Amino acid sequence: MDTSDLIAARVVEETKNPFEEDEKSSVSEIGNLFYRDLYPVNQDTPVADKNTREFLHRILDIQLDYITSSNDRSSKILDFYHPQQMKEKLDLEIPEEPQNIDTLLTDCKDALKYQVKTGHPHFFNQLSTGLDIVSLAGEWVTATANTNMFTYEIAPVFILMEHACLKKMRELIGFTKGDSILAPGGSISNIAITGQLIMYTSQHHHYSVSGGASAIGLGTENCVKVPCDKKGRMIPSELEKLIIRHKSEGHLPFFVNCTTGTTVYGAFDPINPIADICEKYGIWHHIDAAWGGGLIMSRKYRATHFAGIERADSVTWNPHKLLGTLLQCSTLHFKEDGLLISCNQMSADYLFQKDKHYDVCYDTGDKVIQCGRHNDIFKFWLQWRSKGMEGFETQINTLMDLTAYQVQQMKERKERFYLLLMSLNAPMSFFGTFLSVFARFIVHKLIQETGCWNLPFGEFPNFFRSIISNQAVTKKDVDFMLDELERLGNDL
Amino acid sequence: MDTSDLIAARVVEETKNPFEEDEKSSVSEIGNLFYRDLYPVNQDTPVADKNTREFLHRILDIQLDYITSSNDRSSKILDFYHPQQMKEKLDLEIPEEPQNIDTLLTDCKDALKYQVKTGHPHFFNQLSTGLDIVSLAGEWVTATANTNMFTYEIAPVFILMEHACLKKMRELIGFTKGDSILAPGGSISNIAITGQLIMYTSQHHHYSVSGGASAIGLGTENCVKVPCDKKGRMIPSELEKLIIRHKSEGHLPFFVNCTTGTTVYGAFDPINPIADICEKYGIWHHIDAAWGGGLIMSRKYRATHFAGIERADSVTWNPHKLLGTLLQCSTLHFKEDGLLISCNQMSADYLFQKDKHYDVCYDTGDKVIQCGRHNDIFKFWLQWRSKGMEGFETQINTLMDLTAYQVQQMKERKERFYLLLMSLNAPMSFFGTFLSVFARFIVHKLIQETGCWNLPFGEFPNFFRSIISNQAVTKKDVDFMLDELERLGNDL
Repeated sequence: MDTSDLIAARVVEETKNPFEEDEKSSVSEIGNLFYRDLYPVNQDTPVADKNTREFLHRILDIQLDYITSSNDRSSKILDFYHPQQMKEKLDLEIPEEPQNIDTLLTDCKDALKYQVKTGHPHFFNQLSTGLDIVSLAGEWVTATANTNMFTYEIAPVFILMEHACLKKMRELIGFTKGDSILAPGGSISNIAITGQLIMYTSQHHHYSVSGGASAIGLGTENCVKVPCDKKGRMIPSELEKLIIRHKSEGHLPFFVNCTTGTTVYGAFDPINPIADICEKYGIWHHIDAAWGGGLIMSRKYRATHFAGIERADSVTWNPHKLLGTLLQCSTLHFKEDGLLISCNQMSADYLFQKDKHYDVCYDTGDKVIQCGRHNDIFKFWLQWRSKGMEGFETQINTLMDLTAYQVQQMKERKERFYLLLMSLNAPMSFFGTFLSVFARFIVHKLIQETGCWNLPFGEFPNFFRSIISNQAVTKKDVDFMLDELERLGNDL
Repeated sequence: MDTSDLIAARVVEETKNPFEEDEKSSVSEIGNLFYRDLYPVNQDTPVADKNTREFLHRILDIQLDYITSSNDRSSKILDFYHPQQMKEKLDLEIPEEPQNIDTLLTDCKDALKYQVKTGHPHFFNQLSTGLDIVSLAGEWVTATANTNMFTYEIAPVFILMEHACLKKMRELIGFTKGDSILAPGGSISNIAITGQLIMYTSQHHHYSVSGGASAIGLGTENCVKVPCDKKGRMIPSELEKLIIRHKSEGHLPFFVNCTTGTTVYGAFDPINPIADICEKYGIWHHIDAAWGGGLIMSRKYRATHFAGIERADSVTWNPHKLLGTLLQCSTLHFKEDGLLISCNQMSADYLFQKDKHYDVCYDTGDKVIQCGRHNDIFKFWLQWRSKGMEGFETQINTLMDLTAYQVQQMKERKERFYLLLMSLNAPMSFFGTFLSVFARFIVHKLIQETGCWNLPFGEFPNFFRSIISNQAVTKKDVDFMLDELERLGNDL
């Protein structure tokens, strides 16, 4: 199928878009009812039950149509409108009076219609893409359970699932004992481990590391950026030089952040040489594997990319990125047990009572700086159950194969694509550019037509980063992306 | 219906528990399929579509049965098992091989079966109770959209909905301009506003305030606890005395946290007298309305409990508490615009590019310390649309009426219930105790049979706090709780 066919297909598809306003299905038996006809406000059980079931069935249908459309390669990833245009298309206001169920169903359809289809197989932007159906089911059940993760007594099942998942992750990291916790996003995970004085991170670190230094009062000037090589990896000898100099000046180096999978290059800082330095000088060694961590699920890539990870003191690892768990699910692991509770506990006696009638070691709430915790574990647990170790290993190996395929294809089209850099350590991120002055224009076209877009970074102000983390992607989809880039380039 | 009838009803109910393992519905046509037969791994569209739809229909059915059961007063709130027992009942392990769909459906049923039914009308513990069906629908759609809240281009619809909701909330607070953001839980909201030097909060403040002081390096010793009156309210004259003393010692008081709705007493610190002091000494006035904020939706209770709130510099307000929005949804509002971005931006150029083709003021990601943000707004927006201003006002007035009813009932049963304190400013929290040495025993019975439980606090080590925040609660449910407490007390 060539490009003109694709465009033709898209035009045809638009005429049968299931999200059109005039769709018949928005008119339903319960359309004229209101929130007060449903649970929990309506407590007339048979009626409330019937209405609630029908309403939620309609909500399911809207979502199923969206999922079908997201997996349809001929559907657009995004109908882009500027903020002002979007405000005119949608009724976003909070009204004085209640809105009926038909309006609410239309609200839901519109929200999905104008939303970026992050699960579309042609969406190569951002680290979290795809829509894992089992993880989605888990998130729905989580919402229905609507519980907080303070203590065992309020969330017994989910707390135990959290224990099971985090224990398995520590085993994979190579921490034989230790402790772990889920955080509201990897950036909070990266803050949670910081302490004081001087810390080190690569030039290409995630911005949450220096942001964390600022938030805890260390000051961004005490978060020292260590120079990187051309492939975006921290240079260990430069790190050691800085540590020696700062010590001689009377400062106390206390923390090194080793990024495994930088956001833009996908670079891996060398774990073992950094671990050697940290051990030599008695410095905390944190590994930010928020992005790259998924590779640990594959024996092959654990060996090539994460050798030595078990020597770290702590590890951040986000299943919501490479593993495709629904947003959000971010974990933090410590080699030594007992640290979380001793650092963060504020001993809110009303929650964490010591005279409870069960083993209070399952009351995890006092290990974190926030109080209430969203249940981010069930969707991951259910997804992991669905795949087993075997399924995640297959998933990672497949994504890496596709990445290698893209590199190979770019090399074959070398008159059009210039592989700016391909770190062997960073096969998840790719960079192709042709005429950088036109790149921004191409980006606008891509957003409107295809849904891939670029990331300017450092010395390469306009290039394309494509991310393959969606399990729906096939070789044909990679071809499609490259074809579209070529087409737009030719049109210039 | 007397207590023995209720117990009898419960026993009968157990025989038709829809969550029994041997239920026929767990055997389905797709039961022997695996994750690889569904989207996104299966890309053979007609087959994948059919399987995915059937799987998600089965997931919906499980949830509908759970919702029915949660609203059934004769069902138990919790089957309590100790961690070790629970581990024996459930298969929580992460397997080597993929698990089939029947196993996953059983996993979901079990998770709900052994979970605390937080939406049950007899669940009076915790600030977040109930299951608002429209907000639930919103959370499902949010999961299906699976998007991050970095920027307008990745989440155009949801970013605009966030703007609409937060603007409306600022209007209700009384901030004519200003800025707001959603945070991952009220505790992070309370940290985000802190700065340095000396801060003040009441003895009864939420523990996240002193935790935040610690996390940002201020030190818990510089988070000064201001004495409270008998009703748990900060004493303004004591606050002023402390400020004067600290200034005379060369310190710099910079921040006062005024709690409106303390966690245990439900006390309201006096807003206007504290505002007077803050203005006099040039100190930042923050109002922690995480719990009490819902009252702002009612004109009546805004006048009685929140007069002067518009004088504050910032306000934390969690819709996931009194308003019944699904967990989690926590907001932070500033009177002055531009502060969030100037304090927190780390300018991650790869996300927040200035040469974008749309108005970048909608790229909210750089206002917060975390990078990725979960979409916490849609469920609240949809819920608010469903109710309008009118519906939330009715909801708050009804909850407050029920609270007044409970106080009246406790007074009528004064030989059994001692109203430890009933702050007029804090009608959401109640405290009844009879024989405190036996209270812990009663709590165990309650957890196993009823689902209300106690909170020890300060000088009252064993008492019962009942929280009415569930829209499903009726006067009969309040009677039931008091009857159950009486029955267990009589059994001693």
